[in-house]
Amino acid sequence: MATKAQVLYDFTAEPGNNELSVREGETITITNQNIGGGWIEAQNARGEIGLVPEDYIEVGKPQAFASGGNAAPFDLSFFDSHTAAPAGTTQAQASNGNDPWAVFDSHATGGFSNNWAAQPEGTETGQSSSAWPSTAQGHPQAYQGPGAEFDEWDDEWDDVKSSGGYAESEAGDAGAINRGGAHGSSMKISLNKFPGFSKSGPELYLLSKSGGKGPRLPVYTGEVGPVWAYPETQLDCLVADPKKGSKMYGLKSYIEYQITPNSTNRPVNHRYKHFDWLYERLLEKFGSAIPIPCLPDKQVTGRFEEEFIKMRMERLQGWMSRMCRHPIVSSSEVFQLFLTYKDEKDWKMGKRKAEKDETVGVMIFSTIEPEGLPDLDLIEVEQKCEQFSRFTKSMDDGVKDLLTVGQEHWKRCTGPLPKEYQRIGKAFQNLSSVFTSSGYEGEATLTDALTDAGKTYEEIAQMVAEQPKKDLHFLMETNNEYKGLLGCFPDTIGVHKAAIEKVKEGDKLVAASKITASEKAGMSKRASTMSYALQAEMNHFHSNRIYDYNRVMQLYLEEQVKFYETIAAKLRHAHSQFTTM
Amino acid sequence: MATKAQVLYDFTAEPGNNELSVREGETITITNQNIGGGWIEAQNARGEIGLVPEDYIEVGKPQAFASGGNAAPFDLSFFDSHTAAPAGTTQAQASNGNDPWAVFDSHATGGFSNNWAAQPEGTETGQSSSAWPSTAQGHPQAYQGPGAEFDEWDDEWDDVKSSGGYAESEAGDAGAINRGGAHGSSMKISLNKFPGFSKSGPELYLLSKSGGKGPRLPVYTGEVGPVWAYPETQLDCLVADPKKGSKMYGLKSYIEYQITPNSTNRPVNHRYKHFDWLYERLLEKFGSAIPIPCLPDKQVTGRFEEEFIKMRMERLQGWMSRMCRHPIVSSSEVFQLFLTYKDEKDWKMGKRKAEKDETVGVMIFSTIEPEGLPDLDLIEVEQKCEQFSRFTKSMDDGVKDLLTVGQEHWKRCTGPLPKEYQRIGKAFQNLSSVFTSSGYEGEATLTDALTDAGKTYEEIAQMVAEQPKKDLHFLMETNNEYKGLLGCFPDTIGVHKAAIEKVKEGDKLVAASKITASEKAGMSKRASTMSYALQAEMNHFHSNRIYDYNRVMQLYLEEQVKFYETIAAKLRHAHSQFTTM
Repeated sequence: MATKAQVLYDFTAEPGNNELSVREGETITITNQNIGGGWIEAQNARGEIGLVPEDYIEVGKPQAFASGGNAAPFDLSFFDSHTAAPAGTTQAQASNGNDPWAVFDSHATGGFSNNWAAQPEGTETGQSSSAWPSTAQGHPQAYQGPGAEFDEWDDEWDDVKSSGGYAESEAGDAGAINRGGAHGSSMKISLNKFPGFSKSGPELYLLSKSGGKGPRLPVYTGEVGPVWAYPETQLDCLVADPKKGSKMYGLKSYIEYQITPNSTNRPVNHRYKHFDWLYERLLEKFGSAIPIPCLPDKQVTGRFEEEFIKMRMERLQGWMSRMCRHPIVSSSEVFQLFLTYKDEKDWKMGKRKAEKDETVGVMIFSTIEPEGLPDLDLIEVEQKCEQFSRFTKSMDDGVKDLLTVGQEHWKRCTGPLPKEYQRIGKAFQNLSSVFTSSGYEGEATLTDALTDAGKTYEEIAQMVAEQPKKDLHFLMETNNEYKGLLGCFPDTIGVHKAAIEKVKEGDKLVAASKITASEKAGMSKRASTMSYALQAEMNHFHSNRIYDYNRVMQLYLEEQVKFYETIAAKLRHAHSQFTTM
Repeated sequence: MATKAQVLYDFTAEPGNNELSVREGETITITNQNIGGGWIEAQNARGEIGLVPEDYIEVGKPQAFASGGNAAPFDLSFFDSHTAAPAGTTQAQASNGNDPWAVFDSHATGGFSNNWAAQPEGTETGQSSSAWPSTAQGHPQAYQGPGAEFDEWDDEWDDVKSSGGYAESEAGDAGAINRGGAHGSSMKISLNKFPGFSKSGPELYLLSKSGGKGPRLPVYTGEVGPVWAYPETQLDCLVADPKKGSKMYGLKSYIEYQITPNSTNRPVNHRYKHFDWLYERLLEKFGSAIPIPCLPDKQVTGRFEEEFIKMRMERLQGWMSRMCRHPIVSSSEVFQLFLTYKDEKDWKMGKRKAEKDETVGVMIFSTIEPEGLPDLDLIEVEQKCEQFSRFTKSMDDGVKDLLTVGQEHWKRCTGPLPKEYQRIGKAFQNLSSVFTSSGYEGEATLTDALTDAGKTYEEIAQMVAEQPKKDLHFLMETNNEYKGLLGCFPDTIGVHKAAIEKVKEGDKLVAASKITASEKAGMSKRASTMSYALQAEMNHFHSNRIYDYNRVMQLYLEEQVKFYETIAAKLRHAHSQFTTM
């Protein structure tokens, strides 16, 4: 019996790729489920047969994402993304009401830090392949679109051996196996993707015997307090020149971006999946100390649509620039590899090395060295932590508020408002043509002027509709970026709170002879180090925030001024044509 | 048993007038129905007793005008007026779908000209006190508000003897009786208020033996065709200085306006009811040849509210200016009386004379003299008439369209749009206060700038909300005025169409020996005279229209330019405070 499937998203076939275009809500019949590579073969109601991405369909269930087919303009769907459930949402997260900040509520029961606090102490200090809670609980992925819970099949499938019959050069990459079996029978990104992390939390670092491996990360005293060591020249890079590549003998295609760092001025090429790999490495390595914002949303529809590519590139650029601006991230080996690998071999070697890095998770703190800074007592550590928690929570609220208002405004500017200006314009032009029919002499000046005024209001309508792309867009993008960044803080701060709790328990542990007094003193010192790292990171965040918001407000207001000035000039011209002489 | 009554409109008591404030929808108990003068005494649910205007209540019926209590801003209710049924609507008019233009539809069955055409010819050539059809069918009263079907009691009651016990100096004015008994037992303006008109139509003039009485009204050939004789100096007047007067020993109050014509520069005082009297006289005398627009709407609520008085004055000014600009109207004896009466005696004498004027209705054409213009044949007469009919109908549509669009825009500008700008402003200020709480050094420049930007958007919100009063208001007022004026054309043109029909029947009437061949020739000549009058009137209309629309568009666009320029300047200032140094 033929299996029916429901189409969840519009999919437009690439010419010559044996693909089948399908529309959201359409019912198709699966003719071959064993195509592999994330594809199935299906037949539509008109009898046409072709390949359809399997994540675009749902077998035997009614359409689940009716709202995905709304007629909102392209850009809006991106701004809608922050209301959608983040990628990788699990039921555990859903029970937190999707609010990452809920872990700091005293009422939160399934929250992150509570879970940690409830874990038996001292167990499993080694590496494990179990879930890294901060991921299972979900790094909020503000940039993820409504379909993001489906893997980006075209970027992922070819790293995996088990699911398809189509060989590909990269498929045998040892990385897929070395990453702890996270990629196995499923092509989806496993939630257990951070095998290097212990779920037993910050005690791994607090009680570790030796210093960490890898380069030292000093914290200095700057004008504003503890600061990271900043390089003399700030790294930056240009993400540009998206190119369509293809594989599977042309059956599958993808986009490759050219990234040119200002350090080498030599471009390297990367696909989205490489960015994603980098994101995972950075999260794994620095996530406990530094908020690593999610990558821009994975796409579901319109993959090769020009505007989509442009938008993704713009957001990848934003993400890369933010990473480049971070002194710790930008100087890390894995980040440098990504930007400056010499050839395929170099890249693969570097990948393998990065995946084997053991200084990940809370162990990153073992490489941090406060230079000439006195140890902080626990009360100070806790106060700082609380302060940052409060601030990031308030800013998260403020940013979300602005995004909501901006989204509303976007809708009005692209919807009813230009329609109204258009109708005003039409009404003037309509009156003008009525006047033209009067048969009265000397009518022409008025009718010409009225027509012109009408056309001016039609032009204003168009300006109004297009303006959000010129100004509101950047305000929204910056705030979306900050929303993503702020969404990482609950986890980062959570690590610190958990560490503080551990240190507080220190006396009891000493009394129960579970740790020595010297180990207890070491824990305190390490909590102080963690606090310096957090303070340096907050100061980094603040200085960037001040720059970013100044910049985006300048940009926004500049474009707003131009907008209103242009309208005034157009109307002044329209005005000049009327005469009461 | 106490009589309960439902309050139809809000009424605010004047202090010291023994009045009782009531709210729409409130139920009150009538304690004395014999107060007279349009008042009843009533008690509210709190036991308070006082006078309430009887037209504001409805005895024993549930509330009929639920929509009258909407929370729309004051100005909007005026713009809403054009959707409300015009004052004096009768059932006969309602059967025309309230569309005065329906009389020109071939399908119209109860229409105006059809009614006339169906009347037996030659009957009732004398004056009669029966209804003037064009009023029974309803001069569309575009300016009338939703409550206009109730008479304006405070302006009307004191001309009438029968209904009240309170003597007043004017109450004995013979005019009330001489006006054909139209004002009798009812205080409402009778629909039969044009006793000087024959319902038998244009034949009264077409077949009249002698020339008309009164001053000659020449029509000349101008550049644009037939034109009225224009005076060298255009009359104008200033309506100003509204003053509250009172009578009935202070129990009732009213507003008196000061009108100063540029011809004498000597002010005269008039109450609204005098304007209304003038309107009736002008309609009676000139309505067949010249569209006499209705007076601005009568008020129901907020009589002494400052804004209402200002608005009525503005509209009375507009109406008076339009009348002053009309060479025929402005030079008429009755209009001159209104503007230049010397004293109370002069006014009363003039009133009585005007009310006795016999050159009214179609007889006005008997005073029109085309100077050196050749007689037009009937085909030409008919073509001109059709052309004006088409044009005024199209313009009526265009004007109504613009009014609808303008009303929508008004609502948006005073409703959702400023709210949105306010929310944008609040979101910026909110973010600013979050930033202030960061504890980070060097935050002040950004937070000050953000607060300022936020306040700027709040100012813009207020500007947006107030702008319609500065520009859209005048566009709406002018178009409302034209809507009122255009609403008179179906009747005016109807008189001409009826005359054309009569002339067409001429041959049959001659054959049936009902009229002589010379009478038939006279009819043709008189139809030609009517056509010249209509052409002169249309040319007057066109030249005024061109001036008025040029002027109002200049005013509108000028204010729009200022609006956008002011916003741009404010934003430029807000922009200057951000820095990415």
